[in-house]
Amino acid sequence: MVVLNSLKHDNIKLDGITGACYKIKGSVIMRIILNKSSSIPIYLQIRNQIRDMILQGILEPGFRLPSERKLAETLGVNRSTVLNAYRDLKADDLIGSHTGAGTTVLMAQTSINKDNMPQKVSKLPWMQLLGGCALRMQQPLVSDILKTANRKDVISFAAGFLAQTHDPVEELLESQCRLLKDYGSTMLQYSSTQGYLPLRESISNLMQKRGITIDPEGIIVLSGSQQAIDLTARIFIDPGDVVIVEEPSFFSALQIFQSVGARIVPVPIDAKGMKIEFLESLLSRIKPKLIYTIPTFQNPSGTVMDIKRRRALLDIAYKYQIPILEDDPYGELRYEGNHLPTLKALDQHGYVIYASTFSKIMFPGMRIGWVVAEREVIRQFVLAKQMADLHTNTLGQWIMDDFLRSNVFHKRLQTVINENRESRRLMIEALKQYAIEDFEWQAPEGGLYFWCRLPRQIDPERLITKAEEKKVVYAPGKIFCLGYTDNHYIRLSFSSPPKELIKQGIKLLMQAVKETMNEEKMKHSPEASEIMPIL
Amino acid sequence: MVVLNSLKHDNIKLDGITGACYKIKGSVIMRIILNKSSSIPIYLQIRNQIRDMILQGILEPGFRLPSERKLAETLGVNRSTVLNAYRDLKADDLIGSHTGAGTTVLMAQTSINKDNMPQKVSKLPWMQLLGGCALRMQQPLVSDILKTANRKDVISFAAGFLAQTHDPVEELLESQCRLLKDYGSTMLQYSSTQGYLPLRESISNLMQKRGITIDPEGIIVLSGSQQAIDLTARIFIDPGDVVIVEEPSFFSALQIFQSVGARIVPVPIDAKGMKIEFLESLLSRIKPKLIYTIPTFQNPSGTVMDIKRRRALLDIAYKYQIPILEDDPYGELRYEGNHLPTLKALDQHGYVIYASTFSKIMFPGMRIGWVVAEREVIRQFVLAKQMADLHTNTLGQWIMDDFLRSNVFHKRLQTVINENRESRRLMIEALKQYAIEDFEWQAPEGGLYFWCRLPRQIDPERLITKAEEKKVVYAPGKIFCLGYTDNHYIRLSFSSPPKELIKQGIKLLMQAVKETMNEEKMKHSPEASEIMPIL
Repeated sequence: MVVLNSLKHDNIKLDGITGACYKIKGSVIMRIILNKSSSIPIYLQIRNQIRDMILQGILEPGFRLPSERKLAETLGVNRSTVLNAYRDLKADDLIGSHTGAGTTVLMAQTSINKDNMPQKVSKLPWMQLLGGCALRMQQPLVSDILKTANRKDVISFAAGFLAQTHDPVEELLESQCRLLKDYGSTMLQYSSTQGYLPLRESISNLMQKRGITIDPEGIIVLSGSQQAIDLTARIFIDPGDVVIVEEPSFFSALQIFQSVGARIVPVPIDAKGMKIEFLESLLSRIKPKLIYTIPTFQNPSGTVMDIKRRRALLDIAYKYQIPILEDDPYGELRYEGNHLPTLKALDQHGYVIYASTFSKIMFPGMRIGWVVAEREVIRQFVLAKQMADLHTNTLGQWIMDDFLRSNVFHKRLQTVINENRESRRLMIEALKQYAIEDFEWQAPEGGLYFWCRLPRQIDPERLITKAEEKKVVYAPGKIFCLGYTDNHYIRLSFSSPPKELIKQGIKLLMQAVKETMNEEKMKHSPEASEIMPIL
Repeated sequence: MVVLNSLKHDNIKLDGITGACYKIKGSVIMRIILNKSSSIPIYLQIRNQIRDMILQGILEPGFRLPSERKLAETLGVNRSTVLNAYRDLKADDLIGSHTGAGTTVLMAQTSINKDNMPQKVSKLPWMQLLGGCALRMQQPLVSDILKTANRKDVISFAAGFLAQTHDPVEELLESQCRLLKDYGSTMLQYSSTQGYLPLRESISNLMQKRGITIDPEGIIVLSGSQQAIDLTARIFIDPGDVVIVEEPSFFSALQIFQSVGARIVPVPIDAKGMKIEFLESLLSRIKPKLIYTIPTFQNPSGTVMDIKRRRALLDIAYKYQIPILEDDPYGELRYEGNHLPTLKALDQHGYVIYASTFSKIMFPGMRIGWVVAEREVIRQFVLAKQMADLHTNTLGQWIMDDFLRSNVFHKRLQTVINENRESRRLMIEALKQYAIEDFEWQAPEGGLYFWCRLPRQIDPERLITKAEEKKVVYAPGKIFCLGYTDNHYIRLSFSSPPKELIKQGIKLLMQAVKETMNEEKMKHSPEASEIMPIL
């Protein structure tokens, strides 16, 4: 046991930081640094640092600390401050005082480590502890692929956001003040797992406008429509279960189904949506647990499943008894042509689980989406939701309900449609102006995305880098694909960049495409693409 | 094919509802009801009802609809309204017009159903489609057990809520107005999956006050601390993995671990928290994947794990390489005695995943909690969080950050502590005044709960009913237990009922206890409790 009777110290003083450095024979043994401009009380700063040094073994059992008076003097603080710090450390059994012996560091006494031998602790091998679900999601985050997408100096066609224009912010504050005055802090408390009843009534009304007749008991409010996919997967999918998706499809949906261990079977799409005959031909060999589809303004392809295929898909679901998850975030965002009924509106037998969200119309940060389904299915969602996050944030639900009941929601929807229609027009114009042969695209009738086919000789990976150099980003096709089909595509969102940058962005992108094509021509070597055995 | 040339109709008129009922030979064949005070446009009301009748087979293929002019006349609406409805129905291929033949219902034509035979569709057997995760959570919801807990006319000791007093509502509005003025609608947009960086900085500061040194990269913001348990389970637990919990423990945690298929092994607690020697004796036989603990003001028992056991638990974790999930929602709510360091503060090797929340201090409806852990663990949480709900609601994060940086948070914390201390005093007083022999309780030093032992002869189920009759509710012990230990307990929350009702509530509860005891004495029959084979 080392008992030290006197410690030398140096004072530290620098930019509002003071402290002391204690040394024995020239080597530092204890260092306390105080930041007087921090909001953390000084006594806690002292306590925490001494605690850490003891727990890390820097200060060994038997080490004698400076007396309270002396430490206070050295650090230039009140004696009571040090007293408080030492009191806490004593309460934790980290230090002890005995008349004559001063204040010393105590042994760590535990039921296991009775012999006072310092225990050798190895780092926990976290990656080896991961469960199957986590192991299946060890893919790069989309945010990693698009690390520059949020930089201020790039023009981004990557994300399905809305440009931040004309957000009904004034209306938000007005609504909140009024509601808080009338209902007090109830709108800030815990609330129902199924969702705030008045909001479910308002959603029921909104659904009626989309041709879906459902009462509030058949609706659950979720933390965004992403949660609808996640909970559907958790409720229905076991490892090995088959899930049918469109290819290409929403990357988060693919990730979710992968993480629960589903066998994902993609069905290709054409201009009329999912190829139903292809699907039907599969069903003689596989028995899917779920069909996931975005029938209207599909992400990423922008296609709309036509009415005949909608009916045919339902007939298949009925015949083979397969539930359908219909994801409909974009349905209301139509800029030309006529609305088609949702699958849920056509479904008279309760096979469709319908998911939608407010996030593509306003306030995506509020995270409010919902699901419409048979009551017994909603009951399962309530059970799963209770475990996942208890309920959706209450404040956001009250505000959305208020907006749906007043005219704010529908006015905002009209604004978004008008704004997006204009952005889409600018995008079409720019794509025509800077057209490149073999760069193919078609304007979608609604939604947020152009799905463009790259010239065949381009290496899609190379284009990402080239475009980033030119400070323009987009979503590469591969994140939407499972690798079954050609991924020579890119997704361009026209809703997120400011209108005045669309033309410039397309110009830069097309330059990047041209330059990548030219480079490819130069370095072209056919052997490089052949697959050779690795020995 | 039935073609009807003329339809008789009756008009309907009642309280703002108008409509028409079409009959053939006295039996109703088509009914359209219009609600002119509804926010749904009249043309959509017409379209939806006709669509539903066609899809449900009420109107068969070939059925001839009234002409647009005639229907408009009958319903008392503009001709253009009916025109719009019919146009939509035509776009959906549900009806068609041919000169001479009028407007008729079309066949449903699909790729499968080519022979026009009406398909017999069976109801989907949803319960048979549930996956393992959903099947394992088919327990009654706690809200079902406590169905009367939210009724206005009962005194509820059931929920761990705060009484709605002195909520900083004015400060909320002030903060929001100021932030929106300075930062615009950014606080309403999508935001980082790991959480708003300034909030993570503020939480890092708060953690320093709790003795935990962590930079913002080691923190993830979640939708409440419930999500911390859920994501931990999803990241680490596979079916069959062993999870150690205290018995009794937080019911939602038990449900979550059950739903992912964990084998939950409970360790009993005494007045000093989890019995560490019991745990150690288990470890020669089982290899847990995780230890879940609420060391401070445990839910439901209110106990605090003492410092020796905290150290011993960490030593066990180090020795056997088991991660610990430390759930700390109540740590700051201490009404007497000294604060003890959290496990995370004592842990120098990154074995502890620490979870906490703002919900027990203010605005639980905002759903904001967080996790502190090693960076590689945080990375896994980010991956899982991205799938679960993309990110936590942005508005709430900005407000909490503002409150942590200003004095609002700490003032509010002090208010809550003072309020709860007073409620706790009233509860102690009432429990003493209405004391019953063998009804045992101890006042907790902090947190929200009294964990009371019922007299042995009471049937806990019977007491629930009896108490509900007297309009007082509480959380029954069984929901916190796995059935290994005695569940003759009830949990009383002193923070949620209004102060002035605490005494009355305890009085009623004690009457219920007495009456249940008396009834038990009368009907006591020892054989009833014996287990007999069922043949």
